[in-house]
Amino acid sequence: MPRKTVAPTLPAISARAAALPASPIRKLVPLADAAKERGCRVYHLNIGQPDIASPEAFLKALGEYPERVVAYGRSDGELALRRAYRTYYGRFGLDLALDDILVTTGGSEALLFAFFTVAGAGEEIIVFEPFYTNYNGFASVVGVTLKPLATDPATGYHLPPREVLENAIGPKTRAIALCNPNNPTGTVYTAEELALVAELALAHDLFVIADEVYREFVYDGLAHLSMLGLPDLASRVVVTDSLSKRFSVCGARVGCLVSRNADVVGAALKLGQARLSPPVIGQYAAAAALELPPSEYVDPMIAAFERRRNVVYEALAQMPGVLAYKPSGAFYMQPEFPVDDAEAFVSWMLTDFELDGATAMLAPGDGFYSTPGRGKQEARIAYVLNEEDLAHAMTCLAEGLRNYPGRTD
Amino acid sequence: MPRKTVAPTLPAISARAAALPASPIRKLVPLADAAKERGCRVYHLNIGQPDIASPEAFLKALGEYPERVVAYGRSDGELALRRAYRTYYGRFGLDLALDDILVTTGGSEALLFAFFTVAGAGEEIIVFEPFYTNYNGFASVVGVTLKPLATDPATGYHLPPREVLENAIGPKTRAIALCNPNNPTGTVYTAEELALVAELALAHDLFVIADEVYREFVYDGLAHLSMLGLPDLASRVVVTDSLSKRFSVCGARVGCLVSRNADVVGAALKLGQARLSPPVIGQYAAAAALELPPSEYVDPMIAAFERRRNVVYEALAQMPGVLAYKPSGAFYMQPEFPVDDAEAFVSWMLTDFELDGATAMLAPGDGFYSTPGRGKQEARIAYVLNEEDLAHAMTCLAEGLRNYPGRTD
Repeated sequence: MPRKTVAPTLPAISARAAALPASPIRKLVPLADAAKERGCRVYHLNIGQPDIASPEAFLKALGEYPERVVAYGRSDGELALRRAYRTYYGRFGLDLALDDILVTTGGSEALLFAFFTVAGAGEEIIVFEPFYTNYNGFASVVGVTLKPLATDPATGYHLPPREVLENAIGPKTRAIALCNPNNPTGTVYTAEELALVAELALAHDLFVIADEVYREFVYDGLAHLSMLGLPDLASRVVVTDSLSKRFSVCGARVGCLVSRNADVVGAALKLGQARLSPPVIGQYAAAAALELPPSEYVDPMIAAFERRRNVVYEALAQMPGVLAYKPSGAFYMQPEFPVDDAEAFVSWMLTDFELDGATAMLAPGDGFYSTPGRGKQEARIAYVLNEEDLAHAMTCLAEGLRNYPGRTD
Repeated sequence: MPRKTVAPTLPAISARAAALPASPIRKLVPLADAAKERGCRVYHLNIGQPDIASPEAFLKALGEYPERVVAYGRSDGELALRRAYRTYYGRFGLDLALDDILVTTGGSEALLFAFFTVAGAGEEIIVFEPFYTNYNGFASVVGVTLKPLATDPATGYHLPPREVLENAIGPKTRAIALCNPNNPTGTVYTAEELALVAELALAHDLFVIADEVYREFVYDGLAHLSMLGLPDLASRVVVTDSLSKRFSVCGARVGCLVSRNADVVGAALKLGQARLSPPVIGQYAAAAALELPPSEYVDPMIAAFERRRNVVYEALAQMPGVLAYKPSGAFYMQPEFPVDDAEAFVSWMLTDFELDGATAMLAPGDGFYSTPGRGKQEARIAYVLNEEDLAHAMTCLAEGLRNYPGRTD
């Protein structure tokens, strides 16, 4: 082979790859690692990783995995799991055919498949800011433009008025994406809000992507309403779902895409065939978890998260200058803090602060926006730790806020 | 919510989603299912799913999975697995840093990440036809154009001459993708062929995507040469890899992307952060498999595949009108058959043929091309069954060919 000198600069990756944003949830992890190295305990409120044990039924199934050849599964997911999913949705009064359910590698892949399937390159999906940060990455991969509409912490991040929504719909708009209960805000949308989205979807020939990963995580006696429950919208709804949070099996990577539109599921299946199959071992164990009666696992877990929500909300409400609202669902909230720049504050908490050998890590809020400049004073809190740890973390946060040099009030 | 009548036609999915090709490997599965329903045994040579048991070490590790919370893993993969990978590559004389290795959800995801990272939307990657069919799907997802260069069964599908390659490189070309050993042809490229690709990549500022999933599957005493072994090319090579075939753990979905270009791995890591982590349970077990000495699992398996290759090749060589070449690697070959249309023939074998209660299923060849009209007389054979089953399958194939009404010679 002819010898040539390698250029001193690296060959250039694609512009879109170079432009990918770093995850606000994970990009400050090196600072957290450094804090731990110097002996500081870090309460991780930056990532939605619950401290709750996976169901015994799931772990037991893993130990009993019966196959000797860990072979490819079906591209649409193992039949036992899809049947368990159908039964699961039936508990919410949602009557689905097996063919409406396509198993995916986590909710992440369901989002990727949904974005590609409803919108072409350069077409738009309306999202509500702040939104789940990884929508940005999936939209980049498939070349779809996210069109963000602002929501406001002062109103608990509920939807903007109808005219704002209607004005945002243009010739390139193909879908409205709604995460309900919402990550990162914890907002649970009302029946009127769902009806508004549905009405606009019908009037303007749009799909609705409903990210319902946190379906059960609803507090204060509120009911979660699935987009799948709106009969007029049946062929326009694409639900993205995941078992990660519901059964605390985030690492198993098992989720699904649900739609009564056969063209949507058919296209998603072709994408699924390209990647062959979702991970089969996790699917095997997941079927066992999905078959558990809610009283055995999910219900007591939700009760625990409601208590956690209370610990965090009550602590935040005592912190001067913090714009705290009481979230009704999921296990996140995104308050506004009296700081110059939330990322600088979150970094400072890891590099320059500790209280009795501990600190708390949040996720800077601007990463949950695509509009430049928004969310700079916000940070996402994932209340995924036990109440005692959360109380400690809140004490750290309060003390950190008191001492942070970039405080603005 | 206002009631409206749902339109009788389904809301339209994106044009690109509607245009996705069905997998040639899986689209005729319903015909195979129907054949089985009527009691016919189907030898599956259509899919690269080996019948070989996964390593005992892998299965044992599954049963001993130690975590009580199946939590998200690292976005770049579990450290134990990445260390095991580094040791594994070291056995081939490939000295890598841990940060050069990013664990992916199968080789599939590594390909998706590689395509997105080296090429922008509308830019081109040169591939050699026939190519691994799922490149089509991944290219669609990220909006990259595959630019196919023909290779020929009569020459064992080796690379076209330099001038053909050089003429294909245009202003939008960002990479050359080479699968070595090749799926679907079984071709193992020579040192001269690799040097040619490397030279052109350097001269024209291109990346080389080297799909080396079948690295060990090389026969007749030939040596596999990794693109990672070409020092001048270091910053231009992106290897996509998978444990699926090497350890017969296709369903675990564990692979990796390897590059010494930190920008490539950095961008892939951001994509990885968006999807959070690869499946952790499979990764845990995979580390145990990767640590096995080759003599304990891989070497005897490769010897078995060489014997299987011989069974298939010798049988094909006896079939009149079949253009058979002897593949040197992977576990596929793509012969040309004396039939009007290979998909019609493969279908006919499932619907209208059986010999002593059995038939053989191949994958129609045209799905491994993106040039319309090419590959119509070819079919891919995956010799993934034991020798006895393969011999039966070849008898079915020979008899089917003799009786097929669309025979052309």
